[in-house]
Amino acid sequence: MLTAIALYEGLTVLDAIGPYAVLSHVPDADVVFCAEKRGRLSDDNGLLHIEVETDFGEIGRPDVVLVPGGGASRLLDKPGTPIVEWIREAHQHSTWTTSVCTGALLLGAAGVLDGLDATTHWMFYDNLAAFGANPTAERVVHRGKVITAAGVSAGIDMALYLVGQIAGDETAQAIQLGIEYDPQPPYDSGSPAKASPEIRELVRSLNG
Amino acid sequence: MLTAIALYEGLTVLDAIGPYAVLSHVPDADVVFCAEKRGRLSDDNGLLHIEVETDFGEIGRPDVVLVPGGGASRLLDKPGTPIVEWIREAHQHSTWTTSVCTGALLLGAAGVLDGLDATTHWMFYDNLAAFGANPTAERVVHRGKVITAAGVSAGIDMALYLVGQIAGDETAQAIQLGIEYDPQPPYDSGSPAKASPEIRELVRSLNG
Repeated sequence: MLTAIALYEGLTVLDAIGPYAVLSHVPDADVVFCAEKRGRLSDDNGLLHIEVETDFGEIGRPDVVLVPGGGASRLLDKPGTPIVEWIREAHQHSTWTTSVCTGALLLGAAGVLDGLDATTHWMFYDNLAAFGANPTAERVVHRGKVITAAGVSAGIDMALYLVGQIAGDETAQAIQLGIEYDPQPPYDSGSPAKASPEIRELVRSLNG
Repeated sequence: MLTAIALYEGLTVLDAIGPYAVLSHVPDADVVFCAEKRGRLSDDNGLLHIEVETDFGEIGRPDVVLVPGGGASRLLDKPGTPIVEWIREAHQHSTWTTSVCTGALLLGAAGVLDGLDATTHWMFYDNLAAFGANPTAERVVHRGKVITAAGVSAGIDMALYLVGQIAGDETAQAIQLGIEYDPQPPYDSGSPAKASPEIRELVRSLNG
């Protein structure tokens, strides 16, 4: 099973690495990080530098396509973005096409979400709707062969769900135990419905 | 506030990137990835390649030291491991010394955990005890200026707790909302106490 995790300059690295920590443990999984071109790219903070060894032309036809978010909307400022063209093509042959956070906007730009329920980071529902998707405030949204996850950390939940679909509940549970994913956040403000209006405003101002 | 995330060949990348996604959003935080030497290193799967720009000699005196796990026990096969020497030195001046997963074994080797309650990945409690620590089956263990987290994904919870200590509850809650950390794992087998004996055995056989 070939799993392609698409990277790009300015991605939010946890969007990719959360699912990677899960999917890389699926027996017989062949996980490959790929990008528009080989070489170095940096994350949204410009602090983590990743050396990519496989470009989109080399990856072939992945069974699982995973698109992280981050600087996705910046990528969409110019038409004909290579990652969007690649998603469009890869989606033709994939078994699963998935995104985390604003990676959904890249799926949207590739025409994958037209008329479909989907989710993204809570601050980007309007952007998602602009691609014909129905923004859905759930953590993981599965429709047909498309699975979209909410913001950043939601990719871990999405990947465990996907492993359940691909390899069964026992494998998914073993991977959950292997990465000791028994979350105990010290606060309960991880969604806009749970956070106070003041905290929501603070996030908007920090990201504005 | 200088936060040093120490990397090494064979690390489990989510151990570092989970906390990074949290700590990089602390206002005025200066987060630096560092390693024994500049240049490229690969993760425990050999699939992700990171280009490190700062070596231990260049990092100065970090306020926050964060040590991820992964191939930590392999590093300890030979004495005088540079990362252990660096931890020993950095801990003299740090405000917080922290670890995720088997990163705790590196803290232990540096003498940081002697006589202290601490945690690590659930499969490595015995290894932790060998360094004089008291293995503690909690997700995040805070004693003095030392905070240790359980396996892999526990680093996210630890980092949010740490931000609460450093910058207050509101900042931590805003970061939690920013990364939409409202975990909803599709299974409840993320700790050895919750997983079935069969799943525990499966994990041991996969990692054995």
